[in-house]
Amino acid sequence: MSFHTTVDISFGDCDPAGIVFYPNYYRWFDAAFQAYLSTFGLNQGILRDRLGTIGTGLIDTGATFRAPASYGDVLTLHLADIKWHAKTFRVIYEGRVEDRLVVEGFEVRGVFVRDGERLRAAPVGPLCDLMKDGAT
Amino acid sequence: MSFHTTVDISFGDCDPAGIVFYPNYYRWFDAAFQAYLSTFGLNQGILRDRLGTIGTGLIDTGATFRAPASYGDVLTLHLADIKWHAKTFRVIYEGRVEDRLVVEGFEVRGVFVRDGERLRAAPVGPLCDLMKDGAT
Amino acid sequence: MSFHTTVDISFGDCDPAGIVFYPNYYRWFDAAFQAYLSTFGLNQGILRDRLGTIGTGLIDTGATFRAPASYGDVLTLHLADIKWHAKTFRVIYEGRVEDRLVVEGFEVRGVFVRDGERLRAAPVGPLCDLMKDGAT
Amino acid sequence: MSFHTTVDISFGDCDPAGIVFYPNYYRWFDAAFQAYLSTFGLNQGILRDRLGTIGTGLIDTGATFRAPASYGDVLTLHLADIKWHAKTFRVIYEGRVEDRLVVEGFEVRGVFVRDGERLRAAPVGPLCDLMKDGAT
Repeated sequence: MSFHTTVDISFGDCDPAGIVFYPNYYRWFDAAFQAYLSTFGLNQGILRDRLGTIGTGLIDTGATFRAPASYGDVLTLHLADIKWHAKTFRVIYEGRVEDRLVVEGFEVRGVFVRDGERLRAAPVGPLCDLMKDGAT
Repeated sequence: MSFHTTVDISFGDCDPAGIVFYPNYYRWFDAAFQAYLSTFGLNQGILRDRLGTIGTGLIDTGATFRAPASYGDVLTLHLADIKWHAKTFRVIYEGRVEDRLVVEGFEVRGVFVRDGERLRAAPVGPLCDLMKDGAT
Repeated sequence: MSFHTTVDISFGDCDPAGIVFYPNYYRWFDAAFQAYLSTFGLNQGILRDRLGTIGTGLIDTGATFRAPASYGDVLTLHLADIKWHAKTFRVIYEGRVEDRLVVEGFEVRGVFVRDGERLRAAPVGPLCDLMKDGAT
Repeated sequence: MSFHTTVDISFGDCDPAGIVFYPNYYRWFDAAFQAYLSTFGLNQGILRDRLGTIGTGLIDTGATFRAPASYGDVLTLHLADIKWHAKTFRVIYEGRVEDRLVVEGFEVRGVFVRDGERLRAAPVGPLCDLMKDGAT
């Protein structure tokens, strides 16, 4: 997959040690996934209308930090792969500053629907189809 | 001034009402100022080394919200003007989504130096000079 | 008014200069207002149901920074006053670390309703009444 | 371990689906760890002075979301365990809203020192000792 976003790491993204405050990487992962959805003409509101879902919510997430990054760095965040399962899909991320690998991460997401008071993961096939149909 | 940044407003930037959670606008103001500094080869670390400052800290800030923005919108944030005073400077922002004015804001900043336990605003002339010298 | 919240300022709330990254103050203003609403048994979801509003959105905001604060500091954020007008209300904040005044701020809010594609500020009287009725 | 923090989940912590925007959980993990350090009279600045470290930086992180949480919920975040290794330590978190398990997570941290342009993980024994000595 060749989809990526770029993040101009800013002063306010960094902590008193001068390096990125790590929850921001997850914020950028999520934004990259939402941006990827938009390449298929999709977003959370459209998915709600078309799939009756409250959204592509998170089940499991993780990130490993390979090297520090700081303000002034430009992070290129590759959406490296999506693995589709029955009721979940796993999105894989790799972030680099120039050639340097900075972060590797993943998000396991589901297509959640309301089931009374609870949320329930529905089959992801319909989303997978929308992301194929919309592909250009 | 023609300097601007663009922000792809993402799902996670928005609140349960579906519109931008407003502190994010201030985060984007700050990031726009830091990006503007970088066009002169400057950043907070370089200013610390060259001006002995702890940074271009904030004295006063404000933002007026003219229209809502939501995920999928692209915010063009213009750094509309900088007004230089003796110990402060005022940065003016205008944010638009397409032709629609979304936000107007300002930051009054100082060049702060440590003075014992306190911070003190130093003259801003040296910073103003650096931003002229570096201009391309 | 005696309502206040306390914020344990954390490492991640601070920037590379070691002081609070200022948009966080606005995040804490908003959280204080939402916490104040909850003392009347109200929240944004309940207001939506009872007043048909999309929320108590922001019209104008501002903050003046009187002294720096850093991690380890405990910020006491007073909701100092609310001034009610016809279609807006102004919430006044004062934040202190021990006796030291750190931040003064305000939020001008409206009770927004959807009007086609736009948002429109409705009279705030019904909200003001709910906040009196619910008062203990 | 009985250390925990409580988080009043606020409107602005939630996304347009009405549930917590997940990077906030990591922000709360980090804040819980920093709060735990402070029970030993430690913080990142003190560690820098005493251990010559730039901070207890992150190597690996993860979070599994067991149930959604929303504004108005009070999250009790337990620092469930710390496992000490030679050059890393693993902090385990469990977050509940009332009896409901909402999130499980971990942070693998190191005690980083500058080594030229790079950061290097130093032995964590000295930090472990400080956290025992300071224990009350």
